[in-house]
Amino acid sequence: MKITRTVLTLFFITLLLSASAQTWIWFPGDYENWLGNQMNNRRTERGVTIPVQWKLDGHEPLMIFTKTVDLEEPEEIEVYAEGEFIITIGWRIKYQGIKNEPLKVVVPAGKNEIKIKVLNYAKVPALFVKGKTINSDDTWITSPLDSRYATKNMKHPYSPSGYFMNAGTGNLNDPNSLPSEFKLPTKPMKYVEAKQMEGGTLFDFGIETFGFVKFHQLSGTGKLTLQYGETAEEALDAEHCETFDIVDIPAGKSDYTMPRSNALRYIFVAAENAEYDDVSLLYEYAPVEYRASFKCNDEEVNKIWEVGRYTLQLTTREVFIDGIKRDRWAWSGDAYQSYLMNYYMFFDLETTKRTMYTLRGSEPVMVHLNNILDYSFYWFMGIYDYYQYTGDVAFLKQIYPKMESLMDFVLDRRNDRGLVEGLEGDWVYIDWFDDQVDITGEVSFEQIVFCKSLETMTLCSEILGIGSEAQKYDALAKDVRSKLSDFWNEEKQAFIFNRKDGVNSDQVTKHANMFAIFYDYVSTEQKEEIKKSVILNPNIPAISTPYMRFYELEAMCSLNEQEYVLSEIKDYWGGMLKLGATTFWEKYNPEHKGLEHYTMYGRPFGKSLCHAWGASPIYLLGKYFVGVKPTKPGYQEFEIRPVLGGLEWFESSIPTPNGDIKVYADKNKIKVKASEGEGSLIFTSKKQPKTDVGTIEQIGENEFLLKINGDGQEVSVEYRAL
Amino acid sequence: MKITRTVLTLFFITLLLSASAQTWIWFPGDYENWLGNQMNNRRTERGVTIPVQWKLDGHEPLMIFTKTVDLEEPEEIEVYAEGEFIITIGWRIKYQGIKNEPLKVVVPAGKNEIKIKVLNYAKVPALFVKGKTINSDDTWITSPLDSRYATKNMKHPYSPSGYFMNAGTGNLNDPNSLPSEFKLPTKPMKYVEAKQMEGGTLFDFGIETFGFVKFHQLSGTGKLTLQYGETAEEALDAEHCETFDIVDIPAGKSDYTMPRSNALRYIFVAAENAEYDDVSLLYEYAPVEYRASFKCNDEEVNKIWEVGRYTLQLTTREVFIDGIKRDRWAWSGDAYQSYLMNYYMFFDLETTKRTMYTLRGSEPVMVHLNNILDYSFYWFMGIYDYYQYTGDVAFLKQIYPKMESLMDFVLDRRNDRGLVEGLEGDWVYIDWFDDQVDITGEVSFEQIVFCKSLETMTLCSEILGIGSEAQKYDALAKDVRSKLSDFWNEEKQAFIFNRKDGVNSDQVTKHANMFAIFYDYVSTEQKEEIKKSVILNPNIPAISTPYMRFYELEAMCSLNEQEYVLSEIKDYWGGMLKLGATTFWEKYNPEHKGLEHYTMYGRPFGKSLCHAWGASPIYLLGKYFVGVKPTKPGYQEFEIRPVLGGLEWFESSIPTPNGDIKVYADKNKIKVKASEGEGSLIFTSKKQPKTDVGTIEQIGENEFLLKINGDGQEVSVEYRAL
Repeated sequence: MKITRTVLTLFFITLLLSASAQTWIWFPGDYENWLGNQMNNRRTERGVTIPVQWKLDGHEPLMIFTKTVDLEEPEEIEVYAEGEFIITIGWRIKYQGIKNEPLKVVVPAGKNEIKIKVLNYAKVPALFVKGKTINSDDTWITSPLDSRYATKNMKHPYSPSGYFMNAGTGNLNDPNSLPSEFKLPTKPMKYVEAKQMEGGTLFDFGIETFGFVKFHQLSGTGKLTLQYGETAEEALDAEHCETFDIVDIPAGKSDYTMPRSNALRYIFVAAENAEYDDVSLLYEYAPVEYRASFKCNDEEVNKIWEVGRYTLQLTTREVFIDGIKRDRWAWSGDAYQSYLMNYYMFFDLETTKRTMYTLRGSEPVMVHLNNILDYSFYWFMGIYDYYQYTGDVAFLKQIYPKMESLMDFVLDRRNDRGLVEGLEGDWVYIDWFDDQVDITGEVSFEQIVFCKSLETMTLCSEILGIGSEAQKYDALAKDVRSKLSDFWNEEKQAFIFNRKDGVNSDQVTKHANMFAIFYDYVSTEQKEEIKKSVILNPNIPAISTPYMRFYELEAMCSLNEQEYVLSEIKDYWGGMLKLGATTFWEKYNPEHKGLEHYTMYGRPFGKSLCHAWGASPIYLLGKYFVGVKPTKPGYQEFEIRPVLGGLEWFESSIPTPNGDIKVYADKNKIKVKASEGEGSLIFTSKKQPKTDVGTIEQIGENEFLLKINGDGQEVSVEYRAL
Repeated sequence: MKITRTVLTLFFITLLLSASAQTWIWFPGDYENWLGNQMNNRRTERGVTIPVQWKLDGHEPLMIFTKTVDLEEPEEIEVYAEGEFIITIGWRIKYQGIKNEPLKVVVPAGKNEIKIKVLNYAKVPALFVKGKTINSDDTWITSPLDSRYATKNMKHPYSPSGYFMNAGTGNLNDPNSLPSEFKLPTKPMKYVEAKQMEGGTLFDFGIETFGFVKFHQLSGTGKLTLQYGETAEEALDAEHCETFDIVDIPAGKSDYTMPRSNALRYIFVAAENAEYDDVSLLYEYAPVEYRASFKCNDEEVNKIWEVGRYTLQLTTREVFIDGIKRDRWAWSGDAYQSYLMNYYMFFDLETTKRTMYTLRGSEPVMVHLNNILDYSFYWFMGIYDYYQYTGDVAFLKQIYPKMESLMDFVLDRRNDRGLVEGLEGDWVYIDWFDDQVDITGEVSFEQIVFCKSLETMTLCSEILGIGSEAQKYDALAKDVRSKLSDFWNEEKQAFIFNRKDGVNSDQVTKHANMFAIFYDYVSTEQKEEIKKSVILNPNIPAISTPYMRFYELEAMCSLNEQEYVLSEIKDYWGGMLKLGATTFWEKYNPEHKGLEHYTMYGRPFGKSLCHAWGASPIYLLGKYFVGVKPTKPGYQEFEIRPVLGGLEWFESSIPTPNGDIKVYADKNKIKVKASEGEGSLIFTSKKQPKTDVGTIEQIGENEFLLKINGDGQEVSVEYRAL
């Protein structure tokens, strides 16, 4: 009876979904890339707009949307499009639509191909069709080519799916809101303090934030100068504040909202022949859901988790950007970390997909992502992670041709040993280095992420059932993998930094070494050696960006060093909090003093004080303390490995595609509750643990496993933490 | 003294040119392609807009224009752009410009790189810079990439010049007229007759024409229906006229001009609650110069030449289109003939270059030009011809990367014998066939134009000094050339139509055979055999399009059969004139009767009555009767081989890049005058000829040669025509 009701309910939900499933559709990637770059190109620096510094790819201006239907009776459809459009039904039944005006046409009974061409250079051709049974969704086929001219022998880079793709969608379901008009929502926000100063007023919003400044009842004949600051010092420094605006007062007296949103905690407003009643902010934000939660006995850690969440919230915009003051761009290496943090926080898939499409752009590939060699590699790994966390094979299928063509670009540029090097014009970034490093030749770090990317290609082509591709990439990956040992220095027990003309350098940095650990590219013994000889070795240069601290601490977590990691988190991220940070920074050096903390790139306020890569504790805590991760795509199967790592207790909820996994742990008790999938709770215990549901299995010395059924039932275990 | 004056004059002209040389610049190909497709996409068919049926390529939305200058003193420049723009001078001197508003900035003294980024999705980013010494011209470098990220190892298809190209230009020299606002000029035109009919009025403009219909003092509350016709019958046939418009009368009483220009000779106007004082036309035309002239004793031939000129004039628009009623698109095979006719008529290079760029589009190549296999090949040959007629090596250099990538696309799709076949989705067109032909497998015609295209690639890479490429293409061309004999049928003395699975078909059409003649792919003996066994053989299907008659007659001209060709011209083109044609048609079958002449594609008025490929006599007369052609690029050297071919006399002027070649010939006298280059007058004479200037050399039996100096002096020869 219960089952029947569930089935019936599901049946009705399905009906409802299919009746209301129409959504805006487009050529996958084109709209996402366009939208992401609208955001990217809004960056300003000292009053000047700075478009992206890499190649900006356009979209296909003429898109053909097709759907074959077989109707029992004629059906009227309403067609909306972003662009001029022409509807052909079957052979020679043609209708013309005008840009942005819907058109109603009747599709005759019988089997017919509906073909709608949409033309738009300025914005991305998009389509919305509403009918009784005919609705625009991802079952429509999109192509810049007419299917009559579809050629089978189209070679790479458009294989395997050719250029005929299932339509892209993005939860834009209102026919009267054009996709190009997509805007993040805003809400009003008040400053907490206003100070009259010489020449103007300094407003403090109390916290790092982002939005449109609004002047209430603005009047006068002069102008306003706005100096934005992440610190009061920056807002007050006319010569050096990174962003400012000058407003010519419009005639009359009325509210005036700045046309562009900005990062700020402070604004200094200087009025020249201008008056206003008040200032406020329209806080602009991504409407993400706070799906994860985390609480523990340590208030500093709780605060770090919350500030991490807010940092990720602010840097989540149309796409995941690096920082909200600067650069306000999607960068592949930065975004890769946002994706991972997002799986342990918002589980927002649209922003993730949009960012990946924005970073990759269109065909042909002419430069590395963001011009950076390593940033191409993170992009591959990001896609596999996405699949692993979401199980969304449709997206993988859509983006696979773009993976292939990027990998072709990479493979075309290998040296004669089959390894990658930064060629002229390539930026070999890895991290900001405080000391000089030689990034030419074969850099060990780049080979490691190259190898991982090839393994990713193997996995993805296997998932899509393209055996020949999988074989090809597997062979390539094995070849690169076999050459990693060339970089190993037995004496130093470390991977050296680079190799030129067959000669290894003496230099060692942490980067290649820590990736080799959590990619499992070295033996257990080597890992322990690297930990001592590199990670914990004070003679190896310390990492000073949260960006690479992310991976350094991930490597340590993978070595079960959660206690070390927790103390580092408290020290490093806690250190920023102690300096008054309300969001985490682009770079933090505990040695710095006073205003020195805000300098970067030779500019007094060059540093971004709200930088996505600063938020890594939310990922580390979710994945390595709460211990939740999928082991089969989309959390069909998952692991929970709770580790207190020095905490007394924690309580957390981690999102899964259609539910969540709740975990409580203290030294004597673990409680878990999962609402989908099949889980394995794995934990260590000094004593034989007990449970109320299921059977605990011993799988190692002090190590136990309990199967968890994703039925929403709470499972409690009594144990004794090691 | 004379020489000194010329040199001084040239010196001042050069000065003037360099002082006024600023012009709009863009990424080469992007603007041309955009503009050509604005035209292409204005096609309508029975009230519905029909965009191109092949892939419409977009442009690069973010373009970087750079120029390095070394100034003795600071210089103010005025910068105009189509798009938002940012100017960087040297390191960190940045200015921001707003779309369509000029900005004045000062370039400091010393050596500096001026870098201007222009962003525009809707239209093509373009730039205009005006200074004392700094002016936008084709010495600026354009790229969608920042030069800091220029990589040397960029592979094909961007070699050899990478993606850093000298700017494209197009004689758009007014900073206040944006390139996107380019419009063809118009002039008013009156109808010659108006007839009141049932339901409306039929206006006859007396001749095939093109333009915007204008209603004088239009008023009312109803609507107007306009039916356009190339014939009165078409204009009067509401059900079948190919183009029509319906106008909702705007409020008030005023002149009203239709928003879109149309082909017409007749318009039938039906007014419903609408009144107007009069109707006229704004004739829209390409402002080409009539640089060639031709007169002979035969008035019918003179008329054919003039109607040919008018046909070419009407089909010359932003780009060379096929026909003005339908399709109004640039088609590569059709345009190839327009280029050739243009060299003997307008010598308009901008339209030629624009058309070649429009046809080819952007990277990557995904389909054949216009989806047609043979149309890709004509494109290669058109570029070499352009170079040969103009000597414009800068254009060749600019377009060469696009030649390379198209040829790569072709080479990727060869069969295992290294020959081309129509793959699924490819349209193997060749010509409209009245009888059924099997166009699958290895079609001999396609191998011939493929071979010629490879030879073209060899020539072009040689000209650009890319020896390795020349060698590659030469080897490929020789391989295909050696396989042409596979298609030769000794018994039939003809190339058979196609070959499948190693088996030759029995079918013979004229196409491959006539191309083999004028490409010189067969011996002199074979040519004579083919003439008898194919060209003049009544059992081989006759050609019924002017398109392929072009090449048929060219083949006959190359066999010195001008008399035959003249009688065919009079018969076939004269035949159209006798039916009242005021421009030449898409297809003409002398067997048809009455309205049957206007039918095509199963539609009563489907045939285009003004089709560029109908104008070939202007090419045949110029090249094979007047006998002028370049033998070195840009007419540095040329030949004049006057042939009366049945005419009593002719007098003609043929344009060269910076002058013209005037030729008069009758049976006893030849007079030539050339204003540039070094020429060879080659002619046959029954008696020893005499001349007043230079020395005549005998070069064969009855064949003589006289060197002509392009100094503007008339050279007269007395001879006796054979």
